Amino acid sequence: MADQVAGTIPILVAFLRQEVEKAGFDHVVFGLSGGIDSAVVAYLAVAAFGRDRVHPLLMPYKTSSKASVADAKKVLDELGLPLVQFDITPQIDAYFAFQEDASALRRGNKMARERMSIIYDQSALLHALPLGTSNKTELLLGYGTQFGDLASALNPIGDLYKTQIRHLAKLLAVPTAIIEKPPSADLWQDQTDEGEFGFTYEEADAILHLLIDQRLAAAEVVALGFEGRMVENITWRIRQNQYKRRMPIIAKLSSRTVGVDFRYSRDWGM
Amino acid sequence: MADQVAGTIPILVAFLRQEVEKAGFDHVVFGLSGGIDSAVVAYLAVAAFGRDRVHPLLMPYKTSSKASVADAKKVLDELGLPLVQFDITPQIDAYFAFQEDASALRRGNKMARERMSIIYDQSALLHALPLGTSNKTELLLGYGTQFGDLASALNPIGDLYKTQIRHLAKLLAVPTAIIEKPPSADLWQDQTDEGEFGFTYEEADAILHLLIDQRLAAAEVVALGFEGRMVENITWRIRQNQYKRRMPIIAKLSSRTVGVDFRYSRDWGM
Repeated sequence: MADQVAGTIPILVAFLRQEVEKAGFDHVVFGLSGGIDSAVVAYLAVAAFGRDRVHPLLMPYKTSSKASVADAKKVLDELGLPLVQFDITPQIDAYFAFQEDASALRRGNKMARERMSIIYDQSALLHALPLGTSNKTELLLGYGTQFGDLASALNPIGDLYKTQIRHLAKLLAVPTAIIEKPPSADLWQDQTDEGEFGFTYEEADAILHLLIDQRLAAAEVVALGFEGRMVENITWRIRQNQYKRRMPIIAKLSSRTVGVDFRYSRDWGM
Repeated sequence: MADQVAGTIPILVAFLRQEVEKAGFDHVVFGLSGGIDSAVVAYLAVAAFGRDRVHPLLMPYKTSSKASVADAKKVLDELGLPLVQFDITPQIDAYFAFQEDASALRRGNKMARERMSIIYDQSALLHALPLGTSNKTELLLGYGTQFGDLASALNPIGDLYKTQIRHLAKLLAVPTAIIEKPPSADLWQDQTDEGEFGFTYEEADAILHLLIDQRLAAAEVVALGFEGRMVENITWRIRQNQYKRRMPIIAKLSSRTVGVDFRYSRDWGM
């Protein structure tokens, strides 16, 4: 799949320019975590709009990895972008003050939604369109927070698997340290995505490519030599998280229901 | 349209039971504002699940109307539900502490997203599915906060216009004071929806019914005697807010892209 990445930069730059303009904006805003995905979005956005129209936000929590914050700042330095930082600790701690036993997962989801909420508020202030930073692997596996990091107006990298993002990052000259570190949602210390999954991104992407893009059945993927339990796990994750990829269900009562038989395209009438 | 409401209660109760079970839940959670929409959802939910499985949350901000909080408590009393309240003031004030000049609209949207975030967090704690409380008028006019009050798993009232909700509320024996007070998003003191729109819900619903359900052109609606500027305003609002009714746009690069040509139904594989 690596060779498919080479030609994508001009396509994604044109996509960003067209869609942002169509929505009536000429600035963009997004969260910059220090990870590879939001770094790639930052590089693409600067290529599309120039650095004066690109607004990455750093939104660390008190336990966020210092290395991640440093990596995010490295991206800002490389691209010549100013540091805009919102510490989300006061809000998050205020909410959990009476729920000390909340799990790391609940805390992580609350943080992801707080960051979305800040991005959208800054979007209103800066008149900048919120960009998504979720890749295809995450979208298919449902590895993200609904109405949190999965929420955006426009996602330039949602059709690229994590392994393709790595190739794209190299082409864009994203700092090597960011490309090579183990991906992490940073929900707790030393967490890694792959540790949580129980498989690597290379394995996931190879299987997803066969299941989704090549439309192979799970049994056919196993017949090609992939471990049965892993294919089953991935198939289960895809289906289990379908709800994150759809709008809410509305009880149908009339002849035209929003999302059922009233559903123009998103840029209808623009 | 009033006569169409009579038969809907059993349909909506069956919808709630079926869809909540299909999603693997048997409890529901939602925000109870003191307004008519969330009151109707509360009555429907208790009819569907009994009061032990229904979790309405009161989430006032320090400037929230005291009358609204009192009305929400009246609903709890009538239905025999316990009071669960989260004051969102500390979180909201922490965020806006360094942005004192933020507009009422920005503050209102931040509050709506904070409430969504709390509903989803409590959903995880209680293993309860988040219900939406937006009506068809609001969904079509885009009168709501994206990833805030517009976000949910399941919306039982999204295909009923505001004027239909009023009839349904009477049938459900929602307290008269809640049915008859002027609808308000409570963004500032004495705000009313109709004051902001510049037209009444009766006018909006009559026009929306002709435009959407009857599929009339704007000119045909005007020919029936409706004011041209009002029809134009409503048509503009519908189109302008289409983005709130769709998932984010993903740049298409592969043969199968999430939301483009990978889009099973929400309950796919359940």
